[in-house]
Amino acid sequence: MGFNMAIKKDFRVTLSPEEIPKKWYNIAADLKNIVPPLHPGTKQPVTAKDMEPIFCKSFIKQEMSMERYIPIPTEVREKYMLLNRPSPLQRAVNLEKALKTPAKIYFKREDLSPVGSHKGNSAIAQAYLNAKDGIHTITTETGAGQWGSALALASSMFDIDCTVYMVRVSYDQKPFRRTIMETYGSKVYASPSTTTEYGRKVLAQDPKTSGSLGMAITEAIEVAVKDPNIKYSLGSVLNAVMTHQTVIGQEVMLQMDKAEIEPDYMVGCVGGGSNFSGFAFPMMRQKILKKTDCEFVAAEPKAAASFTEGEYRYDFGDTGGMTPLLKMFTLGSEFVPSPIHAGGLRYHGMSPLLSAAYDQGLLTARAYDQTETFEAGVMFAKCEGIIPAPESSHAIKAAIDLALEAKAKRKAKTIVFSLSGHGLLDLAGYEKHIGGKLSSSSRSKK
Amino acid sequence: MGFNMAIKKDFRVTLSPEEIPKKWYNIAADLKNIVPPLHPGTKQPVTAKDMEPIFCKSFIKQEMSMERYIPIPTEVREKYMLLNRPSPLQRAVNLEKALKTPAKIYFKREDLSPVGSHKGNSAIAQAYLNAKDGIHTITTETGAGQWGSALALASSMFDIDCTVYMVRVSYDQKPFRRTIMETYGSKVYASPSTTTEYGRKVLAQDPKTSGSLGMAITEAIEVAVKDPNIKYSLGSVLNAVMTHQTVIGQEVMLQMDKAEIEPDYMVGCVGGGSNFSGFAFPMMRQKILKKTDCEFVAAEPKAAASFTEGEYRYDFGDTGGMTPLLKMFTLGSEFVPSPIHAGGLRYHGMSPLLSAAYDQGLLTARAYDQTETFEAGVMFAKCEGIIPAPESSHAIKAAIDLALEAKAKRKAKTIVFSLSGHGLLDLAGYEKHIGGKLSSSSRSKK
Repeated sequence: MGFNMAIKKDFRVTLSPEEIPKKWYNIAADLKNIVPPLHPGTKQPVTAKDMEPIFCKSFIKQEMSMERYIPIPTEVREKYMLLNRPSPLQRAVNLEKALKTPAKIYFKREDLSPVGSHKGNSAIAQAYLNAKDGIHTITTETGAGQWGSALALASSMFDIDCTVYMVRVSYDQKPFRRTIMETYGSKVYASPSTTTEYGRKVLAQDPKTSGSLGMAITEAIEVAVKDPNIKYSLGSVLNAVMTHQTVIGQEVMLQMDKAEIEPDYMVGCVGGGSNFSGFAFPMMRQKILKKTDCEFVAAEPKAAASFTEGEYRYDFGDTGGMTPLLKMFTLGSEFVPSPIHAGGLRYHGMSPLLSAAYDQGLLTARAYDQTETFEAGVMFAKCEGIIPAPESSHAIKAAIDLALEAKAKRKAKTIVFSLSGHGLLDLAGYEKHIGGKLSSSSRSKK
Repeated sequence: MGFNMAIKKDFRVTLSPEEIPKKWYNIAADLKNIVPPLHPGTKQPVTAKDMEPIFCKSFIKQEMSMERYIPIPTEVREKYMLLNRPSPLQRAVNLEKALKTPAKIYFKREDLSPVGSHKGNSAIAQAYLNAKDGIHTITTETGAGQWGSALALASSMFDIDCTVYMVRVSYDQKPFRRTIMETYGSKVYASPSTTTEYGRKVLAQDPKTSGSLGMAITEAIEVAVKDPNIKYSLGSVLNAVMTHQTVIGQEVMLQMDKAEIEPDYMVGCVGGGSNFSGFAFPMMRQKILKKTDCEFVAAEPKAAASFTEGEYRYDFGDTGGMTPLLKMFTLGSEFVPSPIHAGGLRYHGMSPLLSAAYDQGLLTARAYDQTETFEAGVMFAKCEGIIPAPESSHAIKAAIDLALEAKAKRKAKTIVFSLSGHGLLDLAGYEKHIGGKLSSSSRSKK
């Protein structure tokens, strides 16, 4: 990679623990076209009462809030420090060299969290809110295991018993993710399980089912609904989750300010939308206020291309139709994405807040095939030393394409992308890629 | 874990990239009883010429140096930044609370390296020295894979072709470690392999052999010795490796100075000795100069207790008897430790420099059973969020014991330990521990 990289002041822009943001930014206050979730039965806007059997009151208050800023409790800011917040903003000097591009490329390092991704930013907030409301038992679902690992750690921090319903196929294929959750003290069931009515029903019909995120959500909600002392927690899609994740983007803005970085593009991967929203929303407010020309680019998998192939309409958040109806870009709640390794992006819909921003033209989207994202991930690993999560490699691929477009136009563009997590728990995908056994992901259209 | 941890200035002590040390510290200049390695044939001190078929000249110069300080080339300091150097010194506030101890506990975070451990500190130095000497093909061995992963990344940084001989049993049991090395562009063979005379000979005798570190070293050296354009690289034991690792301890001293931390104990795990030496030697110099009363504690596995059960004598560094004779604490070069999960500590000997320091009474040692180290590791993970490497859990166990001793004596001691790496690639051990299937490691005495 060459011998002459200078120790530049913008190589790694760090912040002190005192600079962890003191408030979350809720973009709902700045978007024009927000519509409420609807009750699937009455088709009327969902009320707080409707949600109380599922979520704790403090969370519901945040979920329905139209306030622009929500204070971050000191207890949450303290636990954010254990996630290595504030995380560095780093320059991909060697990637720039390898691409021979005049563009500058920076990336936000959510990979440094002990749970390996950005998911902890909302997990800690939700564990705190439940503990504050006197709730010490929560349930959730997890697919690939990123969210489950994050909530398991957050639960251990706030003395909460956490039960995770893990999609059967991941439970069997990724036993180490389960081990992480169990190390943090959580109980993990393969879903569908025999612990719920719904699970027993599904197993009776199909004992060999590989499960799905939709089924796991249904089981986790069933357990919560049946006991007022148990609440449910969700790691993406919801407004409050997007808001919690804005600590990422607020840190990035402070870091860009300190290092005098003016981004032409801000890039992130999208599944349910929590990483991209958290990374982009604070800067997007500047776009809404006409204070920046920065372009926002969402990188999605062709296997679940909600933005580039979905419709903007009301749909269920889960497959079983238990959630309220959400206005979002969706491929249909019955749609099952092909089994790409970027499990965190295998979702049929898109966060209502991010969908509204897309509908307003505040961002564009690009869809990538799994094989080209792994090629981008390996190139990044060789240049910068970090093996990225397959999800994050979608953002890397988009950043590389933008850097090459800048090279073709001989323009010194500045690209900032979100490295949502590391790939040390997704090496099976790299093994297949290196062995030439990785399948190209099919288009999501059926 | 409670709600009232304050954001303290000593919670996480960070340094800027400019504060990466500018020199390595070579403790050989300060120890009284250093004796040279001997040629196994002539029993005479080994000369530089003797080593030239194996190592590149610039490395040999460092290996034989008696200079107290060796300048760190700018190119190496730049690449250290990609290992997230300088790494933070962090306070284990929640562990202190859980132990109800008056002691303060701090830990140095080598777990933040993209290769997951401290090994990169010498890997980058060795890759640079080889490239500087015009060597662009190197070989090495790896057991659990920590060193192999680090050298694979370092080789990709300096355009070097790296071939790793990985102990067969690890190659089969830890395929993901191999995937990491291959992702960085290295070639990995299961050892013994058919690519060397020695390997073919062993396989002819025992086609089903699980291999050993000794065999892998022999294969890697054979390849280097046969071609003047190929050199060999080793990740521990050697003087130069200990010296390279002192970037850890120099950072710690600067961090303790900035945060006004005065350690009563500095604790690390020991296998070949590279992490403990790098962490402790700079402060140990202050001990030699009578400028500190800090006590140094080495935590070793009962399965390979070189200090507490070994003899201080000349012995081979490998099983095959191909290396020079080294004066060290050893269990005998034929000794094969039981297969504990802390693979990085499964070595029959101990670094000659660290052995000399132990012989001079500069440190004490404690040996632990694998089950008690995993219990300590899980407690640390629940408190601080980081799942430690099984090797590092030996240091954690010793730190916890010292904190409880301080509690019993009602003394507010200050303990600083080295977290040599994370455990995300060693989760099989945690899985067994949680399932109650982890075997207690047998004493090393035969």
